[in-house]
Amino acid sequence: MSKARKNEGTARPAGRSETTGAIVTLLSDFGERDGFVGIVKGVVLGICPTATIVDLSHEVPPQDVTSGALILASAVGYFPERTIHLAVVDPGVGTTRRPILIETDRFVLIGPDNGLLSVAANAAPVRRVLHLDRPEYFSPSPSHTFHARDVFAPVAGHCARGVECASLGSALDGFARASIPEVRRLEAALEGQVIHVDRFGNLMCNIRREDLTGFREPELSISIGGVQIAEISPHYSAVREGKPVALWNSWGRLEIAVRNGSASRHLRARNGDRIQVNFRR
Amino acid sequence: MSKARKNEGTARPAGRSETTGAIVTLLSDFGERDGFVGIVKGVVLGICPTATIVDLSHEVPPQDVTSGALILASAVGYFPERTIHLAVVDPGVGTTRRPILIETDRFVLIGPDNGLLSVAANAAPVRRVLHLDRPEYFSPSPSHTFHARDVFAPVAGHCARGVECASLGSALDGFARASIPEVRRLEAALEGQVIHVDRFGNLMCNIRREDLTGFREPELSISIGGVQIAEISPHYSAVREGKPVALWNSWGRLEIAVRNGSASRHLRARNGDRIQVNFRR
Amino acid sequence: MSKARKNEGTARPAGRSETTGAIVTLLSDFGERDGFVGIVKGVVLGICPTATIVDLSHEVPPQDVTSGALILASAVGYFPERTIHLAVVDPGVGTTRRPILIETDRFVLIGPDNGLLSVAANAAPVRRVLHLDRPEYFSPSPSHTFHARDVFAPVAGHCARGVECASLGSALDGFARASIPEVRRLEAALEGQVIHVDRFGNLMCNIRREDLTGFREPELSISIGGVQIAEISPHYSAVREGKPVALWNSWGRLEIAVRNGSASRHLRARNGDRIQVNFRR
Repeated sequence: MSKARKNEGTARPAGRSETTGAIVTLLSDFGERDGFVGIVKGVVLGICPTATIVDLSHEVPPQDVTSGALILASAVGYFPERTIHLAVVDPGVGTTRRPILIETDRFVLIGPDNGLLSVAANAAPVRRVLHLDRPEYFSPSPSHTFHARDVFAPVAGHCARGVECASLGSALDGFARASIPEVRRLEAALEGQVIHVDRFGNLMCNIRREDLTGFREPELSISIGGVQIAEISPHYSAVREGKPVALWNSWGRLEIAVRNGSASRHLRARNGDRIQVNFRR
Repeated sequence: MSKARKNEGTARPAGRSETTGAIVTLLSDFGERDGFVGIVKGVVLGICPTATIVDLSHEVPPQDVTSGALILASAVGYFPERTIHLAVVDPGVGTTRRPILIETDRFVLIGPDNGLLSVAANAAPVRRVLHLDRPEYFSPSPSHTFHARDVFAPVAGHCARGVECASLGSALDGFARASIPEVRRLEAALEGQVIHVDRFGNLMCNIRREDLTGFREPELSISIGGVQIAEISPHYSAVREGKPVALWNSWGRLEIAVRNGSASRHLRARNGDRIQVNFRR
Repeated sequence: MSKARKNEGTARPAGRSETTGAIVTLLSDFGERDGFVGIVKGVVLGICPTATIVDLSHEVPPQDVTSGALILASAVGYFPERTIHLAVVDPGVGTTRRPILIETDRFVLIGPDNGLLSVAANAAPVRRVLHLDRPEYFSPSPSHTFHARDVFAPVAGHCARGVECASLGSALDGFARASIPEVRRLEAALEGQVIHVDRFGNLMCNIRREDLTGFREPELSISIGGVQIAEISPHYSAVREGKPVALWNSWGRLEIAVRNGSASRHLRARNGDRIQVNFRR
């Protein structure tokens, strides 16, 4: 997040200008197969024809709120100010979990109040949290099974069109938090875990650079699943083909990769596996 | 379809306005891997640079016209009026099957005349059906293997640019119909089947809400593959985690799901499997 | 490439007009799951809000530069003039491999100098090759692991916004070439190989139509993996369901397909397998 780019000087109402529409990003666990994502886009464009819609991911593992929260958080810093991020991984659709909107100084988040938006919300000061409780901004007679289409997309469309966030719902005090496992500080080590395995088989961990504050990187080593990695390298090619490498990845987190291979397959590692950063003495 | 949103008052020629281009949706069985979809978009944009292109799905199972027809039909009601839907699942490419355009009061369908467009065409009154037989609207020397690129995309581009549908081909009397299996009415039951399994493993059936007209939902039960489901629930979370649930889904059809799981895996069910709605007496 | 469409008369600076932005295509091996592609789009749109971004493929097999080069080359001829193609399959990210830009008379290519851009560059006369060595066009403090986001996307954004290519880097003499296997000319045959298997299981070969110059197609036969195919057909439906067919595909290359089936599965064939065109005497 620290590298968030500042493309525009001051906050403006949602919608970039008369001629270039607001950017609306979409993240979900809908997959690309069944037409659900296209339908959501149709609804947004029906309300705000000038919107530019960008897919973040629709391949979040089904109902995996934590994975979705991490992917969303990794992206919000790289979009222009006032981008609207619509995210739906929603195992509780149709129940009492609330639809919410979080307005920050840099972007707007829309989705279910189940923690999905909470990691991204850390990336900028929060201005207001709203319960989306105004049916005049929903589709008529919304279904119980597809709030992305009937609740979230219409609200995002109105927001993209320039409706003030404050008009879209009633103020809330806070929002649910995703459960990102915490890094444990041992006597001569940090103990973390794999929180995401990407398409290349790279293992992303919950350990962030700032967790190592006060330690010197040359004096560290990494252990995961019985494998020792002697140092944190600057890039994937610092080791020979097929060898494991540890580095700070593009999410700002510790990552274990295998050069031109899959660390997940090579180390038989997966989500939740333990990783340790050992401090030499 | 009944929830189709009316975003614009009156029909206008294709192309939404001078500043926001026409919406063109794409559906195919091309997959996202080989660049075919990108090429189709390049051709559309070359002819109509202001078009907004939206993917519905490119993961229709290869050559599965019926699946494609159902996904297309589920989406057309949620796009603004005058949207152009380009759909290509085309096992007969290069043969005598005709390229067609169906203009309805709300949208335009373009694709092969093999039933793919037929379910969507039910969603609005049909104005005209055209055989796309005007090579001046095709790419020069079209291939025999990629009509999406050489025939359908150029026609969609010209349509998006504002060419009147009537100019794009010669009038036809009708079009081929997709073979959606019919619901059978037994003495004390309706017998339907699974017609689509979505990415979550949810089982979508051919039984629609209107098929139950005259029966009271509280007096129904569902059976599929030896499993009994006691009622039709309002949402997925009406049952406990891992339990099967029946509901009316976002397509307006009967769906069997498993809360936070895959009904397809849990019930070992797939496309074509029988499902029965039993009326209690 | 020979069918490249000419949509615009004369070359103009990048960016199509004031009202319709430049087209930027994206090709990568990032997959659609982890949000990387969305981030790249956010960066491009942050710099050039009017850009129209089109995905070519993000499912290039991880680190498979040759596959990526072939897909890119198959697409560039179908986009309007001055389209900017950003392609990143980059096993050497963070090492000394250079980021480059190739400007041709018809389009602009941006990516790593590892052969990925080289096949596409054959499709039009090359004007200039540039080493992207001007950090003022990068993101501040670029990472070592995600040049797509920090180097290539910003450069593409500036290019889309109208910055002259020549300003974006320093002139180079040439660029790395992808290793597409060559077709061997035997006494009474051409020997080629499968260079890409598409989503349908169709086998695309390195043999191009021009390789057969001087031979009459009716006097040919094809052999692959012990199977004989008697002729080159005009379309997939020239044979009965389930039978293999040879044809000139949409890439202008010899392709082996199975009607309404997968040639890859049916013939147990894959990338690198040998194929022979035999001349009858």
